[in-house]
Amino acid sequence: MDTTKIILPEQDLPRQWYNIMADLPSPPLPPLHPGTKQPVGPADLERLFPMELIKQEASTERWIDIPDEVLDIYKLWRPSPLFRAHRLEKALQTPAKIFYKYEGVSPAGSHKTNTAVPQAYYNMKAGVKRLTTETGAGQWGSALSFACKQFGIECKVYMVKISYQQKPYRRAMMMTWGASVTASPSTQTAFGRKVLLADPDSPGSLGIAISEAIEEALSRDDTRYALGSVLNHVLLHQTVVGLEAKKQMELAGYYPDVIIGCVGGGSNFAGLAFPFLQDKFTGKNFKALAVEPDSCPSLTRGTFGYDFGDSAKMTPLMPMYSLGHNFVPPPIHAGGLRYHGMAPLVSHLTKEKYIEAVAVKQSDVFTTARLFAQTEGIIPAPESAHAICSAIAEAEKAKQEGISKTILFNLSGHGHFDMGAYDAFLEGKLKDDESPKEHASDVVQSPEKK
Amino acid sequence: MDTTKIILPEQDLPRQWYNIMADLPSPPLPPLHPGTKQPVGPADLERLFPMELIKQEASTERWIDIPDEVLDIYKLWRPSPLFRAHRLEKALQTPAKIFYKYEGVSPAGSHKTNTAVPQAYYNMKAGVKRLTTETGAGQWGSALSFACKQFGIECKVYMVKISYQQKPYRRAMMMTWGASVTASPSTQTAFGRKVLLADPDSPGSLGIAISEAIEEALSRDDTRYALGSVLNHVLLHQTVVGLEAKKQMELAGYYPDVIIGCVGGGSNFAGLAFPFLQDKFTGKNFKALAVEPDSCPSLTRGTFGYDFGDSAKMTPLMPMYSLGHNFVPPPIHAGGLRYHGMAPLVSHLTKEKYIEAVAVKQSDVFTTARLFAQTEGIIPAPESAHAICSAIAEAEKAKQEGISKTILFNLSGHGHFDMGAYDAFLEGKLKDDESPKEHASDVVQSPEKK
Repeated sequence: MDTTKIILPEQDLPRQWYNIMADLPSPPLPPLHPGTKQPVGPADLERLFPMELIKQEASTERWIDIPDEVLDIYKLWRPSPLFRAHRLEKALQTPAKIFYKYEGVSPAGSHKTNTAVPQAYYNMKAGVKRLTTETGAGQWGSALSFACKQFGIECKVYMVKISYQQKPYRRAMMMTWGASVTASPSTQTAFGRKVLLADPDSPGSLGIAISEAIEEALSRDDTRYALGSVLNHVLLHQTVVGLEAKKQMELAGYYPDVIIGCVGGGSNFAGLAFPFLQDKFTGKNFKALAVEPDSCPSLTRGTFGYDFGDSAKMTPLMPMYSLGHNFVPPPIHAGGLRYHGMAPLVSHLTKEKYIEAVAVKQSDVFTTARLFAQTEGIIPAPESAHAICSAIAEAEKAKQEGISKTILFNLSGHGHFDMGAYDAFLEGKLKDDESPKEHASDVVQSPEKK
Repeated sequence: MDTTKIILPEQDLPRQWYNIMADLPSPPLPPLHPGTKQPVGPADLERLFPMELIKQEASTERWIDIPDEVLDIYKLWRPSPLFRAHRLEKALQTPAKIFYKYEGVSPAGSHKTNTAVPQAYYNMKAGVKRLTTETGAGQWGSALSFACKQFGIECKVYMVKISYQQKPYRRAMMMTWGASVTASPSTQTAFGRKVLLADPDSPGSLGIAISEAIEEALSRDDTRYALGSVLNHVLLHQTVVGLEAKKQMELAGYYPDVIIGCVGGGSNFAGLAFPFLQDKFTGKNFKALAVEPDSCPSLTRGTFGYDFGDSAKMTPLMPMYSLGHNFVPPPIHAGGLRYHGMAPLVSHLTKEKYIEAVAVKQSDVFTTARLFAQTEGIIPAPESAHAICSAIAEAEKAKQEGISKTILFNLSGHGHFDMGAYDAFLEGKLKDDESPKEHASDVVQSPEKK
């Protein structure tokens, strides 16, 4: 049996992020100011984000330097390993070669730290003293808590109340790193108080938590807000994943025929796929496959158009596939994929057919997650397990067709804080919700013609 | 800032375990049959263990080959990384160089898989179909569940009932890998029924769980028993840790002045320290420091003599430091260190002054664990945090003395399944129990004269 892990030495850590904006065959639509319907400018964003991140959001430079201070922290877990899934391949008796890039080695256990660290860094450099954010599943809140501590910034996390109650260990993790964690809706913001007045027992939602975090950031000069996915600069930071994976696949001697990632906001998929898509723009042939939950299928059954990023309509209008900003997905266990929209860059590339999308059912996700855990050892996060599910489907197809194809997927995080979901699965309590039928009624503007 | 992680390529995975028995300056005492008081022979053990492990238990060969099938599984996470704790050093403003070997990268999250895999392998080779074991904190049960699945062996874990109730995620982890998990005391064994008859609400103990696991193994021809620490063959398997660390320290350009590991049964400490102790036998000067909880101080306040390994007196008499087989340590959060005895090899080397021991308080352990998490990122297991606590104390001492010494410790596991303990710490609910005063009254035979 040949190599299992393809490891890059620390010197091979990428020194620059890859900005796909430089290579897009057609330009994406700009985000719009909801009032003026004009493209948003830097001034519209500077109460929320520091200028360096706003610049990255709009940059068309192909390569953007990673600051040394960020590299020093990346080195705590990067370069992350690329695995050849020998044991899974054997269990499937597939001729396919399956590789996975494993981001669960980061302190917070997922790819989210790749952007949390630079976001905290640029805020610190801009003199920001506090960051607010929201968290649902907890991966993003954990990552930002860790990152803020590294730069001496206070971190305030609005955690969806139902998660706050059901995932006390995620909360403890954030607090161990020094963050303060508030159950949302809270009495600490006007919006939270309004929600509680209407429904004192509100379990909260990501939309409410975002609104509270933004409200607090806007109310204090020393405070800014941080978002864990969707935006261009977030996807940019995640490209370290794909840049490393390209080198590692080269060392392994293969180029992927299929590249797979799960999508909620789109950042872990983009992180892996974008550096490879650069080759696709110049003629390389492979399939880039975004996997979403059947119960929240923004790419496969959403509408492309302008929509708000949050329920409270506080964000700019984003050009994206969306199920509508009032769409509330059923409470599936892959909380990180319960987002009504999709990163504009991922949306654009899907519309332009560089990316394909597929929706998978929760029960299939956990069945394949368990097979993966039993063969490869790692217990995957429910979100990441969506990628496993499709990777296994591709491997099964390769077996039927008798083709030895190369599959690469992003194992974006471990499931150590999601064992309640595995428990429900093992006890036969997981159900598949009906796929949404009506969904896009509140996408606010229909798509531009191509 | 220079290298953070010292990574060995997969080819540098050790091909042999190091057996310290070959190099001991003086021979250790043999374990005794409790009835005859004669040294135990292979026949006394073969109803519990397969012959290959019994041979390893008594072997004096210096190097023992690691089977290819075991290496293939080790490769899922080995060689494990060695970290230079730059960020911790900076926070402490110490001239000391701090290194740690990180075993939390294994699927089950600790060093325990290093022995679980070969134990499952040798049992499979001997035709064994089922393994029974006990687990308290859950690290060992998880590791064996994973390992058994790799070789198609059934795994039955008796989990101390209070842990079974308080740590449902550990249970879910074991079941995800296919093990069956039973709360102990259970109605499935005569001993369990006896305990329940006397106390239907018994929260269980490691002693009871061991007895149930052994009883079941003895009752079925296709079933054997597996132990996660204490025994020579377990310590042998753990030497992959120290063998890798020696190479990695060489690459880093340092030899440790202090080598630190926490001790419960002794195996993670032995795994790191034994390959270095080989040099100490031939004159190399360094301190090997075993760290135990103040509330269960077998090495620092126990008696060296012959004692049973379990409360129910089903094991041979072991020559070791012990607090007495009826000693019940207070319910500290480092459940993996709540053992009344100590591995005979660690005991022998402590008695012979090759190893020093220190006991630390739980509150200090969590305070330093949090500092470690905030600087190095990784949230450590409470057990492993005992090693951190002493490493930091050594670094502080170096600072006071103005000496640039090199410290190496074993970070034997992560704390992702122990966040309840961090929660208690953060809420100020952790208390330090009084150190035990009376303890060794039931060590059954006083020590041999040296």
